[in-house]
Amino acid sequence: MVVKSKRQKKADEQLAAFGAEIVEDIAAVRPPKLRVPSRSTSNIFYDKKNRYFVLGDKHGIRSAANVKQVKKIAQTLCVADFCKELIDTSKFATLREMYYTAEGWDAGSFNDQGESDVIVEDLESMFGVKREDLGLVPEEDGAAVYGQLVVKEGDAIIDATKAGRGGYTIPPTIDDVELTKCKAKRVIAIETMGMYHRFVQEQAWKTFDALIVGLKGQAARATRRFLKRAHDDLDLPVYIFTDGDPFGFHIGMVIISGSAKLAYINHELAVPDAKYIGVTASDIVNYKLPTDKLRELDIARLKQLQKDPRYNTKFWQDEIKKMLEIGKKAEQQAFSKYGLDYVVKEYLPAKLKENE
Amino acid sequence: MVVKSKRQKKADEQLAAFGAEIVEDIAAVRPPKLRVPSRSTSNIFYDKKNRYFVLGDKHGIRSAANVKQVKKIAQTLCVADFCKELIDTSKFATLREMYYTAEGWDAGSFNDQGESDVIVEDLESMFGVKREDLGLVPEEDGAAVYGQLVVKEGDAIIDATKAGRGGYTIPPTIDDVELTKCKAKRVIAIETMGMYHRFVQEQAWKTFDALIVGLKGQAARATRRFLKRAHDDLDLPVYIFTDGDPFGFHIGMVIISGSAKLAYINHELAVPDAKYIGVTASDIVNYKLPTDKLRELDIARLKQLQKDPRYNTKFWQDEIKKMLEIGKKAEQQAFSKYGLDYVVKEYLPAKLKENE
Repeated sequence: MVVKSKRQKKADEQLAAFGAEIVEDIAAVRPPKLRVPSRSTSNIFYDKKNRYFVLGDKHGIRSAANVKQVKKIAQTLCVADFCKELIDTSKFATLREMYYTAEGWDAGSFNDQGESDVIVEDLESMFGVKREDLGLVPEEDGAAVYGQLVVKEGDAIIDATKAGRGGYTIPPTIDDVELTKCKAKRVIAIETMGMYHRFVQEQAWKTFDALIVGLKGQAARATRRFLKRAHDDLDLPVYIFTDGDPFGFHIGMVIISGSAKLAYINHELAVPDAKYIGVTASDIVNYKLPTDKLRELDIARLKQLQKDPRYNTKFWQDEIKKMLEIGKKAEQQAFSKYGLDYVVKEYLPAKLKENE
Repeated sequence: MVVKSKRQKKADEQLAAFGAEIVEDIAAVRPPKLRVPSRSTSNIFYDKKNRYFVLGDKHGIRSAANVKQVKKIAQTLCVADFCKELIDTSKFATLREMYYTAEGWDAGSFNDQGESDVIVEDLESMFGVKREDLGLVPEEDGAAVYGQLVVKEGDAIIDATKAGRGGYTIPPTIDDVELTKCKAKRVIAIETMGMYHRFVQEQAWKTFDALIVGLKGQAARATRRFLKRAHDDLDLPVYIFTDGDPFGFHIGMVIISGSAKLAYINHELAVPDAKYIGVTASDIVNYKLPTDKLRELDIARLKQLQKDPRYNTKFWQDEIKKMLEIGKKAEQQAFSKYGLDYVVKEYLPAKLKENE
């Protein structure tokens, strides 16, 4: 027998209700209609209270009575059916696999994957659930986690201090994972794997009672979901440590306040209480770090961030201004100038003290 | 007390001997000289017997008596000293960390990381060891492994069926990992993580007694080393499954016959007996796979491969020719057209039968 998680049950019920409604319409000889939240820029707002982007109230109505929309409605039903079968058989598939599976659908196949992806986003925003809960998962795994956390994936029990140096890999299906035991007191999310390995090697996870999370650049959806669960379910403060450049800043900010593109699902992903600890422009000055000159692209990006509502705090405005003034950026690994363990022995304690 | 592996001991001895020679020269008021194998294209040859690229006999002599070379010699000694300290303290560092550490060296810092990387390659080719054995590791982790393998990393014992769906992550320091127990009978290395997760989900590791390796695109050095050790030390046949396009072919070929760029170290990385199982041009035709048209870039790349000595076999020449003729390529996930499990239930058994 297939055991479904609470989330899968909820998604399954939503899909069943959706199907029942369509069947009812057809039985009553009424053309089925879909009410799809608009995801256009004009319907994306920064929610100051929640501190992340959300969708407004605008909706589009798609009707089977409209010849131009009927194929898309049929495809939406096929996607919903595909998802229901995934949930009912406890399977998952990638967006790419679904795109190819559609080659065999009566509703007609898609011209490119962009078309099938959009339909999945429609369902996500109609139901307010993540596509992962519908059985559709990203190709790539999430971050690496090292530290005093024990998780349960199906029958497997995994201790994130005993999964090897590479750590426990956050799977695309992170919501099916039970976080069964956690002795850590905080999470430190790190942009580069070079710095992640430095933290693991210097046993920062032990010294600082921390889960060390190696983001591998921009955080994957599964990683963001993991960080949110660590914060909400395990009650851990989350700290973010990236390169000191606009792209590093934004890796942090997307974890904190989500992206506009995923406004319809930020309530599942954003961690507004997460704290960005560096590398800041002030760090570059105070620690006399080796730097690179800002490129034109960096400067343009910093100027964009100045106007972005997510950066509308004194801390961010000051740091962006300072970086533009000094005209320089620095990488996390630049602390090696003072020895390989300096970042763990000196920088990190100072930063945690400042933020706790 | 720090326990060194056999490889670390060997590297440590080589570094010590190297230092002793320099000291001897200086004591005898003789300007120290370095004999560095040439890594220019004119000194890289395809070795038909070993079936991978190797370096020829050409060497450059670098002398401290030459004012133009003295800084580089001093820097080489600093790098060697840095590596010896890493080994002696059982630490490792990234190339990037070493580059920044050099900010504090008397020999003068580097203008960019390209300069310090070249010196590391000099040492690798002078000693015939990998930089990982010198304590210098890549930033990124290697592939994911799922299957009946137990490894030992320091005190941690990891079962690659119990590390979670994301699998056991091959660390940059894979040569320090003991492969303690293996019940698997073969290795299947897979280009994309989407297909890796499909194989894990459909329990292909159990059905085919296989270690499933998720390459994440072009195989990292640590992954290639792992595959070589699985073949040489565990005596397992290695099969490679990639997208059916020139870039997929080459992901396979670099595992099989190594790259020209790493000719000085291919004896540690290449797995000439590994078998490429697909997606081939013949597969595209025989399985009537959904395809994309070859782009100009693909065609140009295929024509390059035709002339590459590594592809000088009937199998490859036929497949490249056929792909150019049909003008089409296909992804691994294209098999989903026939259902999510088709690739594991039908394609893989047929391919293994053909190749075993």
